[in-house]
Amino acid sequence: MDLELARQLSQPNTTKIILCVLDGLGGLPRESTLRSELEQADVQNLDRLTARSEAGLTFPVGPGITPGSGPGHLALFGYDPYKFDIGRGVLEAVGIDFDLGPNDVAARGNFCTLDEEGNITDRRAGRVATEISSKLVERLRSIKLDGAEVLVEPVREHRFVLVLRGPGLGDLVTTTDPQRVGVPPLRAVAGDERSQKTAALVNQFVAEAEALLKDAAPANGLVLRGFAKYPELPQFPEIWGLRAAALAVYPMYRGLAKLAGMEPLACPGGLEEQIHVIRQRWDDFDYFFVHYKKTDAAGEDGDFEAKCHALTEFDARLPEFLNLGADVLMIAGDHSTPSLMAAHSWHPVPFLLHSKYCREGNAQRFNEQELLKGSLGRFPAVDVMPLAMAHAMRFQKYGA
Amino acid sequence: MDLELARQLSQPNTTKIILCVLDGLGGLPRESTLRSELEQADVQNLDRLTARSEAGLTFPVGPGITPGSGPGHLALFGYDPYKFDIGRGVLEAVGIDFDLGPNDVAARGNFCTLDEEGNITDRRAGRVATEISSKLVERLRSIKLDGAEVLVEPVREHRFVLVLRGPGLGDLVTTTDPQRVGVPPLRAVAGDERSQKTAALVNQFVAEAEALLKDAAPANGLVLRGFAKYPELPQFPEIWGLRAAALAVYPMYRGLAKLAGMEPLACPGGLEEQIHVIRQRWDDFDYFFVHYKKTDAAGEDGDFEAKCHALTEFDARLPEFLNLGADVLMIAGDHSTPSLMAAHSWHPVPFLLHSKYCREGNAQRFNEQELLKGSLGRFPAVDVMPLAMAHAMRFQKYGA
Repeated sequence: MDLELARQLSQPNTTKIILCVLDGLGGLPRESTLRSELEQADVQNLDRLTARSEAGLTFPVGPGITPGSGPGHLALFGYDPYKFDIGRGVLEAVGIDFDLGPNDVAARGNFCTLDEEGNITDRRAGRVATEISSKLVERLRSIKLDGAEVLVEPVREHRFVLVLRGPGLGDLVTTTDPQRVGVPPLRAVAGDERSQKTAALVNQFVAEAEALLKDAAPANGLVLRGFAKYPELPQFPEIWGLRAAALAVYPMYRGLAKLAGMEPLACPGGLEEQIHVIRQRWDDFDYFFVHYKKTDAAGEDGDFEAKCHALTEFDARLPEFLNLGADVLMIAGDHSTPSLMAAHSWHPVPFLLHSKYCREGNAQRFNEQELLKGSLGRFPAVDVMPLAMAHAMRFQKYGA
Repeated sequence: MDLELARQLSQPNTTKIILCVLDGLGGLPRESTLRSELEQADVQNLDRLTARSEAGLTFPVGPGITPGSGPGHLALFGYDPYKFDIGRGVLEAVGIDFDLGPNDVAARGNFCTLDEEGNITDRRAGRVATEISSKLVERLRSIKLDGAEVLVEPVREHRFVLVLRGPGLGDLVTTTDPQRVGVPPLRAVAGDERSQKTAALVNQFVAEAEALLKDAAPANGLVLRGFAKYPELPQFPEIWGLRAAALAVYPMYRGLAKLAGMEPLACPGGLEEQIHVIRQRWDDFDYFFVHYKKTDAAGEDGDFEAKCHALTEFDARLPEFLNLGADVLMIAGDHSTPSLMAAHSWHPVPFLLHSKYCREGNAQRFNEQELLKGSLGRFPAVDVMPLAMAHAMRFQKYGA
């Protein structure tokens, strides 16, 4: 919905909302059993809750569109993912808890391998070990540029973040990654006037970096992409009138929530600690976003059994989530990650919303096939927030 | 979806997509049996495929909107039918391989029968034989107008195409077809300044034509409609990155596909030949659009049994379509044509998509009632292309 209208309809209340995002929740049936991960796994608590909830399947972005983590979460937070786009560089930076500011342009960097002619032979430098690439990042920190501060941070293996900090830097800069081997890295090119300076700085940085990395094979080169500034997202607490907390173990999801204006709460221990922290901070917030990564990690690994196990592990905690006594409890996913595909997919994502104002549908179990019969049917994930607000009695009537 | 985004997300692959359009596919139950054509017909192959496909019902345009052939097909090709509008005259002209230019205004013509008072008694002149109407078209070619070249081409039976070629001709001109008998043809009226000249030329053409056809009963009159210039349609192969072939017996559908940039392949023999040609040209294309007309023809005739028969005839060929080995096989319709109504209707249209990444729903048969339980539910036909692209692994992830 229109966020300005959301702001107008929002009204204060004392009700509490919990959103549990099971990353990569949706799956596909395995050929041997014709059952999906959710159909196979023991999720009896979710099944029971489905029968007395509003349930269905969400489109994170749209039919046929496979979402990245950014759009998948933004939609659940109520942002139209076609309208609000977060650059890869920013995601990568917030993913390592880098404190981005308004004068920063961030890019995702990969160390790569160059041959003697300067052509790329491996775009990921053999997935060089994190300890090695961290030392190379330290070398890169010695680069000084005229007109911008250079900040470089390691991420993991061949990946790092480059941030250029300075006034007047645009972020419309093309990638230096040719996306194939046998050719040299590309020169960065500005797409508008404001980004001319950025592109020049980027090319200067790359030249100096290559000199510094000359002896560092296999990581003797680098490519940069996803140049992006801090996005101007309307702030979640102001739109919906909710004091919002984010409980995510992985920095990427904490970072996304922070971009939306939520307050990240430390919970490195996972579900048990997330539940504990919610209980402790119950009075301080109206909305709790809980992120659970294991479902997606298992799916991405193509490990059907591990995904079933991750689902069952969450299911076992469901009674504790219910016992917190929120007025609205939602179980959702940011996208599907079928083990069969070992990747994100476009398939709609299981969803349920439990409150005391639920209209029950015909779904009796929490899986892809059964949820087609739920009272919410198939619907855009961006509608989740308005629904939650309604069930939390936090939306006024529209019109007289 | 936005076509610019589609272009950005498209990525190369070697996968193949087949779209079979059963024209006028959807029906309505007959009162005597409470069964629709699909429920009555033997479509056991479609039934079996439904159980292991993603299935549902499409809205060609929108709820309550009865589509013409143009919008019905454009939507299946991924064009928003509200945004892209193709005039009937253009469709008819390109359907006979007429080489339309930017200075042309095309109209669809029907020979009709006029009584002595000049009132229409048969809007299709008894579906006069093509050989006869072709000769009448030759007579019409003798008409000379001041300010525009007159081009007339036969189509089939009572139908022909009129093209006025000249500078400064608008196409906002009303039909001369009153759409009923017992009244005379209407005068063409311009809807804007640019079309004044066109309307005047049209009325002059009609007057001269009636004089030339005086002795030609039952084809002693004509009506014109669908005045239109060549539309600027973004090209299907460029948007989706698909080399696209069109296999349609009828010129209208070939023409439509050509407007979208598909390559028409000759297949006058119908289904058997269509399958044969696809097999022969398998390596040359990524996407095959197959058009099957008999379902619509029977529906338009109000012939319930004939429509059942046409459905069964297609169903018998389904195994051969499956054996072609496409990565994505879709069975769709451009609109419903219930025999009960003997006309196009607004009812949603049966649809299935088969690939190895299917999420099965609860539909076990391929008919209007059962498909409500399918995993695709009821959805806009314009979403068919993004879905096909996703299942063909030809769409990149959206956002990071």
